[in-house]
Amino acid sequence: MDLNSDLGEGFGIWRLGDDEALLGIVTSANVACGFHAGDPSTMRRVCRQAAAAGVAVGAQVSYRDLAGFGRRFIDADPAELADEVLYQIGALDACARAAGTSVEYVKPHGALYNATVHHDRQAQAVVDGVKAFGDLPVLGLPGSRLLHHAERAGLRGVREAFADRAYTPDATLVPRTQPDAVLTSTDAVLAQVLRLAERGELVAADGTVIKVEVDSICLHGDTPGAVEHATKVRAALEDAGVPVARFVVR
Amino acid sequence: MDLNSDLGEGFGIWRLGDDEALLGIVTSANVACGFHAGDPSTMRRVCRQAAAAGVAVGAQVSYRDLAGFGRRFIDADPAELADEVLYQIGALDACARAAGTSVEYVKPHGALYNATVHHDRQAQAVVDGVKAFGDLPVLGLPGSRLLHHAERAGLRGVREAFADRAYTPDATLVPRTQPDAVLTSTDAVLAQVLRLAERGELVAADGTVIKVEVDSICLHGDTPGAVEHATKVRAALEDAGVPVARFVVR
Amino acid sequence: MDLNSDLGEGFGIWRLGDDEALLGIVTSANVACGFHAGDPSTMRRVCRQAAAAGVAVGAQVSYRDLAGFGRRFIDADPAELADEVLYQIGALDACARAAGTSVEYVKPHGALYNATVHHDRQAQAVVDGVKAFGDLPVLGLPGSRLLHHAERAGLRGVREAFADRAYTPDATLVPRTQPDAVLTSTDAVLAQVLRLAERGELVAADGTVIKVEVDSICLHGDTPGAVEHATKVRAALEDAGVPVARFVVR
Amino acid sequence: MDLNSDLGEGFGIWRLGDDEALLGIVTSANVACGFHAGDPSTMRRVCRQAAAAGVAVGAQVSYRDLAGFGRRFIDADPAELADEVLYQIGALDACARAAGTSVEYVKPHGALYNATVHHDRQAQAVVDGVKAFGDLPVLGLPGSRLLHHAERAGLRGVREAFADRAYTPDATLVPRTQPDAVLTSTDAVLAQVLRLAERGELVAADGTVIKVEVDSICLHGDTPGAVEHATKVRAALEDAGVPVARFVVR
Repeated sequence: MDLNSDLGEGFGIWRLGDDEALLGIVTSANVACGFHAGDPSTMRRVCRQAAAAGVAVGAQVSYRDLAGFGRRFIDADPAELADEVLYQIGALDACARAAGTSVEYVKPHGALYNATVHHDRQAQAVVDGVKAFGDLPVLGLPGSRLLHHAERAGLRGVREAFADRAYTPDATLVPRTQPDAVLTSTDAVLAQVLRLAERGELVAADGTVIKVEVDSICLHGDTPGAVEHATKVRAALEDAGVPVARFVVR
Repeated sequence: MDLNSDLGEGFGIWRLGDDEALLGIVTSANVACGFHAGDPSTMRRVCRQAAAAGVAVGAQVSYRDLAGFGRRFIDADPAELADEVLYQIGALDACARAAGTSVEYVKPHGALYNATVHHDRQAQAVVDGVKAFGDLPVLGLPGSRLLHHAERAGLRGVREAFADRAYTPDATLVPRTQPDAVLTSTDAVLAQVLRLAERGELVAADGTVIKVEVDSICLHGDTPGAVEHATKVRAALEDAGVPVARFVVR
Repeated sequence: MDLNSDLGEGFGIWRLGDDEALLGIVTSANVACGFHAGDPSTMRRVCRQAAAAGVAVGAQVSYRDLAGFGRRFIDADPAELADEVLYQIGALDACARAAGTSVEYVKPHGALYNATVHHDRQAQAVVDGVKAFGDLPVLGLPGSRLLHHAERAGLRGVREAFADRAYTPDATLVPRTQPDAVLTSTDAVLAQVLRLAERGELVAADGTVIKVEVDSICLHGDTPGAVEHATKVRAALEDAGVPVARFVVR
Repeated sequence: MDLNSDLGEGFGIWRLGDDEALLGIVTSANVACGFHAGDPSTMRRVCRQAAAAGVAVGAQVSYRDLAGFGRRFIDADPAELADEVLYQIGALDACARAAGTSVEYVKPHGALYNATVHHDRQAQAVVDGVKAFGDLPVLGLPGSRLLHHAERAGLRGVREAFADRAYTPDATLVPRTQPDAVLTSTDAVLAQVLRLAERGELVAADGTVIKVEVDSICLHGDTPGAVEHATKVRAALEDAGVPVARFVVR
């Protein structure tokens, strides 16, 4: 099982999350590319640290929205969105190559992630942007339009689940605007992760059991107790005999 | 003799200059990378057109300053500036590669161009950013700290002069804040270009004759009559038997 | 009949439309406030010119979206949107007061204008932002949620129609993504304006006749032939005996 | 003695400093206005809290530089800088009035603060921007060009010293790029503040004693132990019989 996390989400003087700690835990780093967070110096630093830690670098592409941290749907023109995705991947890849690694996958951030679950044209636009750069794997929700279009375009679709997010019965995320969107108890997080890894099942907020195969589990870095949760998730997986390794094989 | 021009300097709904016309005249296109101008869609369009026209694509890197169009000195930290240069080159290179070409040189824009004539640390920072990307030629003013550091770092320093800018006796540009900074008469532009190409000489605003070898002549796209000037400059050079060709040889 | 137009929609080096010419024609100026266009120097200049011409200054508030010129729906949090509206009005009012006038009304721009026709919470948010500043009139589409909430909050709702936009049978605008969204023929523009002013009727793209009372007609400044259209619209209204005067009475 | 601090210096998702705690200690709040930090919602929240706490609201105006947190000198055109200052004051004043208070003074932030100590034209520009808004007091370094021009323009110049910054022998701040620019020991901070309040003296980093009368002491909110320092400074002043009260009297 791969473990991925959003990293490098500061901007200028501002920091968010504990990049250093998480890079010791996860196997794939979704690095912000400057559109919702992530200035060039932060990007290079995270790439250097990821390279040193053997963690795969992914481009966490976003709508252009620093003020909203990329968490607001923008009705972007698909052709422009594809160009913005390409721009972000290229910028991060330059930072990654300067650090001796390269961008190895792409994952949309925040509202773009949520939009591309259902929004066919934006999902296609993200895939178009990735294809314009090269044949990189795309990380997304199983059953999303994003993974559908990625696979149709000949890209690897990497299926992920969230360790600390509550699910609806149709396997989408409970929106952050709702009170119980984020699991804050360590027990709940561990139970969700182990059931996922061992049985291929998620339990929705209403109790519905959902069958789902995933390649990666997303650990958020900006939730309360993020590092502690992440540490325990990795330990629990290893204790249960689930090998933790990056999904990208070079 | 190479002819270069600043292109793709619109942003979103706003346009500046006539990219299409200039791409039929120049041999090297300095493409804005999003920091002083240049959104991703404009960048891709210009790269596509440049590739089709056989024009070399260069990264016109800038301070982060959309509001000031990169024309204001910013006392940027050299390490951060190097990272911003790397980011911009990477973003443009992705656009260029999607268009079947690639970034073939780097030229600083506006106030960064002017700063790196004398500002040793910022000149070194630009070179550091270029080197972090790869061994690309750097376009700049002969005698500048920028070309000095580029050559020390093993990069090709490409020397340029401006067709439509007045010069001081020490071969730097008369600042745009002064009334006669830009040559608006076609005759003055042609005289400056021909003397440069045929005799390796510039005549400063005060009449001083300056000896200078250059590899490229910069034609501005946003001055009054820019396209007409550019057309006549190219014709005048060809009439005088000066071959017009890109300095980058692949 | 009041005539309003969007002005001051440049940013930094970039210009859009002919502010000076339009200020000689319209009676109300919707001035961009920095979120989709409009830097502080442009704002002060337009306010000075409007004050000199006796034209009312209105705050053309927008989503924060320079790259998209405010033409893309953003799913902004209503409370944050209200705060952004307040911020923009305050910034423009300072510019207006320095020019001897003040902000006399508010009109949402682009996608925010379109959203607040139907989007109840965003319409309420715009009104909340206006109310937080003071009891200014709000310019909008007749029948919109925006005018509904403005009037419920005790603000004057000023109803407008567009001289150069095609209408759907339910009196909303044909989206700009459709080919015939903008009337480019002068005859069509004049016919629409005169029928509106004299008979209180619009003819939709499909021929449906719509009864509608309006207080103001919007003339776009960035469409082909904008100034010519505006001049002819004003002349046609005056020739038809319709008094042209600002809706704001001080 | 007035105590002032920089507040509201987050942006979007990012926070900096503990606004709530500092508002219980200081008498004047320098509120970021969106150019180096400070989104509209943060601005309104801080204004509401300041109004509730009886703390004066000041406009902390800055160069337009979110990426550099306003800490980098920008060679801004003075006329544009004046317009940007006016814009920022107006935006904050709208937020303050919605909270039942108003902007009562202006203080430049970061690099603009440092520039206006010596840079005559930028100092004049800041004063021009303030005057365009109204006759507000200006907070600055004693002996600065900023206070010189403020007083020449008929504005009150409010003189301040920094509790936690080291001084050069000519009473300017040791630049943040130097290692000992910020006093981190509580004892050093308290000694500097008490000597200032009781004897009107500063001791420079090299031991030089400087005579200086000040109206306000600046407590930084983003330094290590900021809140603890601020609490102790206020207590020490009160213990020494120095009345702590806002310099602005309404």
